[in-house]
Amino acid sequence: MIFKQLFETDSSTYTYLIADTDTGDAILIDPVLETVERDLQLLKDLNLSLNATLETHVHADHLTGARILKQKTGCKTAYPAMVQASCIDIGIREGSIFKVGNICINPLFTPGHTDHHHAFLIDSPIQKLLFTGDALLIEACGRTDFQSGNAEALYNSIHNKFFSLPGETLIYPGHDYEGRHVSSVAQEKARNPRLGGGKSKQQFIDIMNSLDLPYPRKIDFAVPGNLACGSCPDNVPEELKGSCPFHDQG
Amino acid sequence: MIFKQLFETDSSTYTYLIADTDTGDAILIDPVLETVERDLQLLKDLNLSLNATLETHVHADHLTGARILKQKTGCKTAYPAMVQASCIDIGIREGSIFKVGNICINPLFTPGHTDHHHAFLIDSPIQKLLFTGDALLIEACGRTDFQSGNAEALYNSIHNKFFSLPGETLIYPGHDYEGRHVSSVAQEKARNPRLGGGKSKQQFIDIMNSLDLPYPRKIDFAVPGNLACGSCPDNVPEELKGSCPFHDQG
Repeated sequence: MIFKQLFETDSSTYTYLIADTDTGDAILIDPVLETVERDLQLLKDLNLSLNATLETHVHADHLTGARILKQKTGCKTAYPAMVQASCIDIGIREGSIFKVGNICINPLFTPGHTDHHHAFLIDSPIQKLLFTGDALLIEACGRTDFQSGNAEALYNSIHNKFFSLPGETLIYPGHDYEGRHVSSVAQEKARNPRLGGGKSKQQFIDIMNSLDLPYPRKIDFAVPGNLACGSCPDNVPEELKGSCPFHDQG
Repeated sequence: MIFKQLFETDSSTYTYLIADTDTGDAILIDPVLETVERDLQLLKDLNLSLNATLETHVHADHLTGARILKQKTGCKTAYPAMVQASCIDIGIREGSIFKVGNICINPLFTPGHTDHHHAFLIDSPIQKLLFTGDALLIEACGRTDFQSGNAEALYNSIHNKFFSLPGETLIYPGHDYEGRHVSSVAQEKARNPRLGGGKSKQQFIDIMNSLDLPYPRKIDFAVPGNLACGSCPDNVPEELKGSCPFHDQG
């Protein structure tokens, strides 16, 4: 198995490449439009065939590379099944295992950051690998104040789907803004300032309600753009055009 | 493969259990005397046979459980080969792979915290697992002001043996004092305040020389005790007797 943790600097997004070395099959979790060329080069360098792109959710902070990667490689686009859009090939659902070669990826329905968010769990021979998307971040979590976000739902998702896993389970988040790459269930249970140390549901809800976060700078074009699998809408402000490197091909 | 990350609270030491599920063979890296009963119970619960205890170095902050575990299970004691003591069964050397069932453990000679320190590297099908002992800690490193410690040697060890590994390589440290459990080579390269961001050797040496750390509270009995594989010397102060739960059986 090949595992690569890739980073896009403008939105601080982690993209994950997972591939079966025996079969050459690969997927990308949460690819970003800006870094599609990097991802294509990596697939080429490693002699891998991209089966699909998997989205944890409809992102509000960057455009997905799903559409362009499909154009360039013929891969499938996979989104949580609750998201309805004509560009989507595969609906992700908890209970439906997604196979990449002989690797099994288990989707976990984890609403709260958005109402359709899914995380992905892989059982390795050593520890479990949990791709938490924007539900749980290292010492943080996704915000719950737009896109049908809900703090109580997020608390339940994190406790029921993540914190019930063995302490050694590795946490690979969808973003990090401070150079952190990996955590574990035990570490987040101990240290996460919003959830750790046994914080109650009400404490978590109060923390989330008091965050007073700025309006997301890309949301107005990112959400409609991602509902079109990473198409660049016309309303991208001039100063954010860097998020749309493939606009002319759109 | 079974992998468990275990914690001893008084010295904030991580002990690692690694076992081959096919053969039932197990090792413990850096077991602690206080938590021997926990480790024995875990081995029993998981139906594992303890082949050996592996020390990354002669610890100055806790007593190893090696001697008692050998008494209770018949396992071998393994220390870096530079350490000479009659209680030691196996000398650990870089280049000599240590096998646990079918799992290969690669010792890496990493002097600097002590002159004989070794880390352990396991190649998993996904990422490499690096047990850094006290050479590299999460956002910190072992001190270099006693037991033939040397800041320049530690800098070289970390750069040549650890930072040359793939960014995804997981770092499992010998201690953590703030509830952190796991990091990666990429994360420490980015964030470690003593080494990260491309700090020079001289910058690192200056940082280590300016730490002004207190005298280690257990060193006077821990070092001679660990040279006897975790025997309790007579000079254990009354307030630290908790570090010697097996004194009467010594």
